[in-house]
Amino acid sequence: MTSYKLVARRPGQADTIIQIANCRIGGGNVVVVAGPCAVESEYQMLELGRQLKECGVHMLRGGAYKPRTSPYSFQGLGEEGLQILARTRELTGLPVISEVTDVRELDKAYHYIDVIQIGSRNMQNFALLTEVGKQDKPVLLKRGLAATLEEWLWAAEYIAAAGNHQIILCERGIRSFETYTRNTFDINAIPALKELTCLPVLADPSHGTGRASLVAPVARAALAAGADGLLIEVHTNPSQALSDGFQSLTPQEMGRLMRELRQIAPAVGKTLP
Amino acid sequence: MTSYKLVARRPGQADTIIQIANCRIGGGNVVVVAGPCAVESEYQMLELGRQLKECGVHMLRGGAYKPRTSPYSFQGLGEEGLQILARTRELTGLPVISEVTDVRELDKAYHYIDVIQIGSRNMQNFALLTEVGKQDKPVLLKRGLAATLEEWLWAAEYIAAAGNHQIILCERGIRSFETYTRNTFDINAIPALKELTCLPVLADPSHGTGRASLVAPVARAALAAGADGLLIEVHTNPSQALSDGFQSLTPQEMGRLMRELRQIAPAVGKTLP
Amino acid sequence: MTSYKLVARRPGQADTIIQIANCRIGGGNVVVVAGPCAVESEYQMLELGRQLKECGVHMLRGGAYKPRTSPYSFQGLGEEGLQILARTRELTGLPVISEVTDVRELDKAYHYIDVIQIGSRNMQNFALLTEVGKQDKPVLLKRGLAATLEEWLWAAEYIAAAGNHQIILCERGIRSFETYTRNTFDINAIPALKELTCLPVLADPSHGTGRASLVAPVARAALAAGADGLLIEVHTNPSQALSDGFQSLTPQEMGRLMRELRQIAPAVGKTLP
Amino acid sequence: MTSYKLVARRPGQADTIIQIANCRIGGGNVVVVAGPCAVESEYQMLELGRQLKECGVHMLRGGAYKPRTSPYSFQGLGEEGLQILARTRELTGLPVISEVTDVRELDKAYHYIDVIQIGSRNMQNFALLTEVGKQDKPVLLKRGLAATLEEWLWAAEYIAAAGNHQIILCERGIRSFETYTRNTFDINAIPALKELTCLPVLADPSHGTGRASLVAPVARAALAAGADGLLIEVHTNPSQALSDGFQSLTPQEMGRLMRELRQIAPAVGKTLP
Repeated sequence: MTSYKLVARRPGQADTIIQIANCRIGGGNVVVVAGPCAVESEYQMLELGRQLKECGVHMLRGGAYKPRTSPYSFQGLGEEGLQILARTRELTGLPVISEVTDVRELDKAYHYIDVIQIGSRNMQNFALLTEVGKQDKPVLLKRGLAATLEEWLWAAEYIAAAGNHQIILCERGIRSFETYTRNTFDINAIPALKELTCLPVLADPSHGTGRASLVAPVARAALAAGADGLLIEVHTNPSQALSDGFQSLTPQEMGRLMRELRQIAPAVGKTLP
Repeated sequence: MTSYKLVARRPGQADTIIQIANCRIGGGNVVVVAGPCAVESEYQMLELGRQLKECGVHMLRGGAYKPRTSPYSFQGLGEEGLQILARTRELTGLPVISEVTDVRELDKAYHYIDVIQIGSRNMQNFALLTEVGKQDKPVLLKRGLAATLEEWLWAAEYIAAAGNHQIILCERGIRSFETYTRNTFDINAIPALKELTCLPVLADPSHGTGRASLVAPVARAALAAGADGLLIEVHTNPSQALSDGFQSLTPQEMGRLMRELRQIAPAVGKTLP
Repeated sequence: MTSYKLVARRPGQADTIIQIANCRIGGGNVVVVAGPCAVESEYQMLELGRQLKECGVHMLRGGAYKPRTSPYSFQGLGEEGLQILARTRELTGLPVISEVTDVRELDKAYHYIDVIQIGSRNMQNFALLTEVGKQDKPVLLKRGLAATLEEWLWAAEYIAAAGNHQIILCERGIRSFETYTRNTFDINAIPALKELTCLPVLADPSHGTGRASLVAPVARAALAAGADGLLIEVHTNPSQALSDGFQSLTPQEMGRLMRELRQIAPAVGKTLP
Repeated sequence: MTSYKLVARRPGQADTIIQIANCRIGGGNVVVVAGPCAVESEYQMLELGRQLKECGVHMLRGGAYKPRTSPYSFQGLGEEGLQILARTRELTGLPVISEVTDVRELDKAYHYIDVIQIGSRNMQNFALLTEVGKQDKPVLLKRGLAATLEEWLWAAEYIAAAGNHQIILCERGIRSFETYTRNTFDINAIPALKELTCLPVLADPSHGTGRASLVAPVARAALAAGADGLLIEVHTNPSQALSDGFQSLTPQEMGRLMRELRQIAPAVGKTLP
């Protein structure tokens, strides 16, 4: 297979830096994105957004369109969820990120959110990759459950080939034989991607472990390995979450994790604002 | 997770039988589907269709929309490919099957083809599953590269929950650590699915092995394990194929495989018409 | 890595045939080996041996040294188990096969059994491979849980390099992400090995599936894919077995499977005596 | 399966601390073990030992019995290698660790080395586990290539059940579908083991990545995730190494890594002496 043309790191090339409002992703800066798996209600999201801003988080995440294994599970609030995210951004001043799963929803989502997320299950939904490549907002591209680094970078190349070079990669664990954890967080991928591409690389230890008790250690590890930021699931009351509560931190735990990350960042030559 | 409502086998339930023109899928009948990875030209498809009909194949396959790892690889002929498939059906009298990768192409494809294929990369593209669930043609649902049987059946449940119960499952190999073969054909999945669901189960040994020399033995194995049919990539000149030539049989090899399958079918109590 | 010297198939080379008393392994002959996971008592083994001989089975298996995940599980009867196997051979006239896990037990086992089995967990126990390579009885080498075909053949090369060329390979399933089955039986491995080596290849669908209900279909599949024989766990009362009862057939089910195999063998040009 | 009796963490139980000469493993202390894949000559080992002591490394490693995929690869110097290790310990004052692969070599190795390593391929060599459980030196138990955490802890339980509770676990990467790296370092395993057991947990990023350029970032990550120490392959001239040169650091790179680790240790509340 010929090599990637647009996303491959060329000798001497500087890291790609993506600016989203006040947030800077890449280039030695550590960005922390946090929020619930799914936007469940306006009250939940505004309250949590306020608490996360206090923690020092830089961006908010929340799912409006939720790809769920079963058709009978909560599928997200759809456009209402996007509107709640927009109001949360207004209240907190923090940019928001949310997943789009259907090309037909892209225009709608574009108006409400700052970063468009492509989830693991859609990493090779090439129609969707091409469409997000045609618009001008940054794209967070999660790794597919069983995607090699090479396939993942080719997926990024689809976006770049369509015109959008503002691509953020996000390692979120791969499928292995181990059953104690939901996925196997591929820590090797972080420095490997730094060799292969200039694009910023975030880490999602919530999906990468699937256990709240393992999220903080693996978040610290990802930062120590060179990640440009983290994506963390937080819920005010994990045991009541409509999805993924078992892997969500409380805002208090998130505050503690922020303090831990602030201690590690300088030790690896990074700035966590 | 609660169990599937619509696709789970209930005690005493008969196998689902899907009738497509003269072809009967399920219920002790073996169906053989063959054709090129991609429709490359009208000449290629008509000539190959004619040869495959002579082999005794029951349905034809050919990709018009090709999901390719790289954006720079041949992406298929699109609607022109569908039109060529329709003309090949006219010439041969054999029903045709082709993959749809984008919800926006579904109406178009509906008019040209007999069975709509959902490929591995889109097994959890829930928007697409729901849309093929709303129309009335049979759907061939391939297993995702790293999908468990449970996740696969939940994907089928999405289609059924939207109203379409004409679902054909197709095992096509899973991703493992082995590198000699492109994928690891999961032979266990064939009898396991027969326990779990009444839906017919086909086998695709072309993708399941990724090596032409292994296709026939694994095709025979799938039939011996209880598969309701096979999906085989055939090309008149594999070394010149625009995609997947390394795993394509020639029409002559396909003819030989048909003879082998005809010997095994009665040994496992099946009919191969 | 340079290629195998002794176990690689050379152009035009004939299949290796291994003769064990009246049993012929390889060269178009199908051999069926059956027996309990573990030898539990003389009564059990003699009675089961008698029933299996009636089924038409060609060799008997039974574990005397059982490698168990937990040190508190039943570890086998040791030398007493070997003695029982030898008496069962005397009674039935069928050769016996049993696993050796410790180089220090090899001499002892040599006196009682006809084929020495190296289990999955010891596929790369190179000290043990070298020792079985120095003695003159046939060796059944099971594939490691996560061994590539290449690593497996290198393990066989260790035995051959020490002087013993009577090596029988046995595919028994690999570890994958799927949890419905205990292992993923790698059907591709059967024809792939036939390309790569002249050594005979058996299949163990009992470990390859880990579910009694899937054993017969996968056994049929292995035969249809070109396997030279089968290794099947059978217990007179699976629910009372001291190990692996969940994947054991009853003698009645084994008899039925023999009849199914006899129907498939001629369909793939094999002889099942 | 019933639970581990001896290696499971009980509520309120303190971390196991293992003292080897001046080195303390566990309990907030970080230990760094470094050395060549294989002991190649006395000159190499003495010179490298001297350089590693200068780097501040706490223990030395070096293989005398090398389990190699091919029987034609360098298999280690055997007892001569052990003698060289003993002389290097004398010269440097640093304890030495080396792998034993054969129960018959255990007594010999016991006299020369401080910690007995059980390698990945022998993680379920139960005869060997039981023998190292009967002697009184600490055992470093590497994770099998495809071992779950549960199976790994059961292997440790074999050692403990035989009487030896001085067990050090070492994560060294698992086998996955990714081919860019030799193995997938399972960072989740570090904090997961800390929940499940009191035994100290080391990390081997050399095997865990299989690429020298990834060793330092993954070593930092393991420390940040809570590892009690590191096992690093170092060679004075990696391109000339008789084995595993591609994943070996130079002493200069090792010195730099020590400085990086010293910056991270306090950030995660650990002491690196």
